[in-house]
Amino acid sequence: MINDNVIDIAKNLINRRSVTPEDEGCQEAMKAFLATLGFENETMVFEDTTNLWSRRNQQGPVLCFAGHTDVVPSGPESAWKTPPFTATEVGEYLHGRGAADMKGSLAAMLVATREFVRDYPHHKGSIAYLITSDEEGPFINGTTRVIDTLEARNEKIDWCIVGEPSSTNDVGDIVKNGRRGSLTGDLTVKGIQGHVAYPHLAKNPVHIATDALSELASAHWDNGNDFFPPTSFQISNIHAGTGAGNVIPGELKVCFNFRFSTEVTNDILIARVTEILDKHKLDYNIDWTFNGQPFLTDTGALLEATQHAIASVCKRPTTLSTAGGTSDGRFIAPTGAQVIELGPVNATIHKIDECVKMADLETLADIYYAIMVRLLA
Amino acid sequence: MINDNVIDIAKNLINRRSVTPEDEGCQEAMKAFLATLGFENETMVFEDTTNLWSRRNQQGPVLCFAGHTDVVPSGPESAWKTPPFTATEVGEYLHGRGAADMKGSLAAMLVATREFVRDYPHHKGSIAYLITSDEEGPFINGTTRVIDTLEARNEKIDWCIVGEPSSTNDVGDIVKNGRRGSLTGDLTVKGIQGHVAYPHLAKNPVHIATDALSELASAHWDNGNDFFPPTSFQISNIHAGTGAGNVIPGELKVCFNFRFSTEVTNDILIARVTEILDKHKLDYNIDWTFNGQPFLTDTGALLEATQHAIASVCKRPTTLSTAGGTSDGRFIAPTGAQVIELGPVNATIHKIDECVKMADLETLADIYYAIMVRLLA
Repeated sequence: MINDNVIDIAKNLINRRSVTPEDEGCQEAMKAFLATLGFENETMVFEDTTNLWSRRNQQGPVLCFAGHTDVVPSGPESAWKTPPFTATEVGEYLHGRGAADMKGSLAAMLVATREFVRDYPHHKGSIAYLITSDEEGPFINGTTRVIDTLEARNEKIDWCIVGEPSSTNDVGDIVKNGRRGSLTGDLTVKGIQGHVAYPHLAKNPVHIATDALSELASAHWDNGNDFFPPTSFQISNIHAGTGAGNVIPGELKVCFNFRFSTEVTNDILIARVTEILDKHKLDYNIDWTFNGQPFLTDTGALLEATQHAIASVCKRPTTLSTAGGTSDGRFIAPTGAQVIELGPVNATIHKIDECVKMADLETLADIYYAIMVRLLA
Repeated sequence: MINDNVIDIAKNLINRRSVTPEDEGCQEAMKAFLATLGFENETMVFEDTTNLWSRRNQQGPVLCFAGHTDVVPSGPESAWKTPPFTATEVGEYLHGRGAADMKGSLAAMLVATREFVRDYPHHKGSIAYLITSDEEGPFINGTTRVIDTLEARNEKIDWCIVGEPSSTNDVGDIVKNGRRGSLTGDLTVKGIQGHVAYPHLAKNPVHIATDALSELASAHWDNGNDFFPPTSFQISNIHAGTGAGNVIPGELKVCFNFRFSTEVTNDILIARVTEILDKHKLDYNIDWTFNGQPFLTDTGALLEATQHAIASVCKRPTTLSTAGGTSDGRFIAPTGAQVIELGPVNATIHKIDECVKMADLETLADIYYAIMVRLLA
């Protein structure tokens, strides 16, 4: 596929049924492509997950393309207009699972890299690829373990472009230059089960928890800042009861999630939640799952190169944003790397009939190329 | 079984596997017994439920024994020391499902009636039996429909003894002279589902409901009175959430139950709950299930006869109580009947190894006999 255009490369990847954590040969195809361009490939398998670290040159600075070959399940295939794992052109669009998230981005990265290496074979620094097959899954054996391996041998990424579909209406209209942190709490409030006819013998955990939950739901955590909205708290699940209408439940289970700005830390949030629960004298257990610190790339050569490239290729400025869900950027940013996310329009991701405008993939390849020129030419 | 003693009659009934709504011939055995004593039997079948209305004489006043032939399931039979549907003497006790709730009471009623009819063949008024086989079940086709039938033909019960196991330590130590009302609410609070990363596009029904639930849980409904504890509100079940930790739920479901005194009515409770939910501007649906008005028999010939009979037979006074769960008395009391519940010790009801002290059944028959003498001799 070394001489294919961006659409044909995208098709090659989409046709592989690489539902998390499967890779289905996507990385082998990328490795062959990159080897031809002088990259050294290193496959890192952790448990059920195949990852690729590929690098051209040994000197710094390192510009890294990060992404994933796995996709979310298609849902019922009969609901799709075209077979989800057969890349199909429909008018100006290319349809198939992963077209926008993010096999189209991978194709654009590869084409941009091929053109750049051909035009600037003696470029500055290094180009690298950090590719995983578990981004859509539990993110345990993917990017985070590759980063651990690189850190252990003191191998640094200076600039990282994550190919997540950041755009809203037109490719490049939005660049994500950070993400909020994510912290999940699994709370169990203990009571004493009993019969509703004998409430004096029981202790209703729902009743004793409502004031604390109300205070958590209405609490002000921070004001956000120029780049982040205020930290938000949301209860995602709440359950108590045996199903019977005459039994006072013995415990209440509440799962909640923080999306938090750089104005707080997970330690601050845990301390404030604990303070509220203790103030209401609840008997409780809580398990915390820390899903990632917030990160922010608000200045630097990568951001400047990205803004310049989009202005140059698209003839309009881009908007910086930190909104939306998490991405693997959260595992790369803590190493000190500058990280941005830039990819195609995300309107159809994770949905039936996922698709991408074919011209956008060509534009995206041009933008990636322009960034490489600005940073490494 | 017309000449059997109370223990043998109880065994005959316990040996029948009459799990709700099955009767397994219990009522046929009772009908044969009562026919011998000059009762006219009327079987009333409603859907899956067999009921018996049996009456001796046509004149008033009517003293009615009320009870049920059905029992709750045994649970794992291997957990029982003796087979649950084989009445077995163990020391001073008779073991088997229904021994205390309430086949023992039925046996005591029958023996007391036999002795009374033999001693006072020309007694005043009428003796009646209202027996159902769905007391432990949905209580749709049992006592409530028999009462409807009697009301439709203007047939009145003046005094009703429900044989529910009312006693705590010794037979007759507690007489239930009323029961709290029961009202259930199934509340659905509507929100808007969304991703926790985009809370501004969603509306979390748990967050918007916590203040209202807190107010309901801490509300003061009444002070109770000499016979009833204060009305109590209990949330029995609460559920929201898809299971996923990153989804704001679209709705919250809450099931709650009132056990209420004669100081309020179901209409008052519904109005107060509605006022609280509306005050908090919730978008909600609520389905109400009205399980029974509270009832109270605080004076009258039945209560006087019962207290006198217990004092005479047991040589100690009894205590009046309205505590505990509901009973079929709630369907009989609204007709204007005086209703009390008097039966054996309830320590083992609905449990593994349900049992009753055999001497208590003989004492109970003596108490029932003494009540009949006081009211109808």
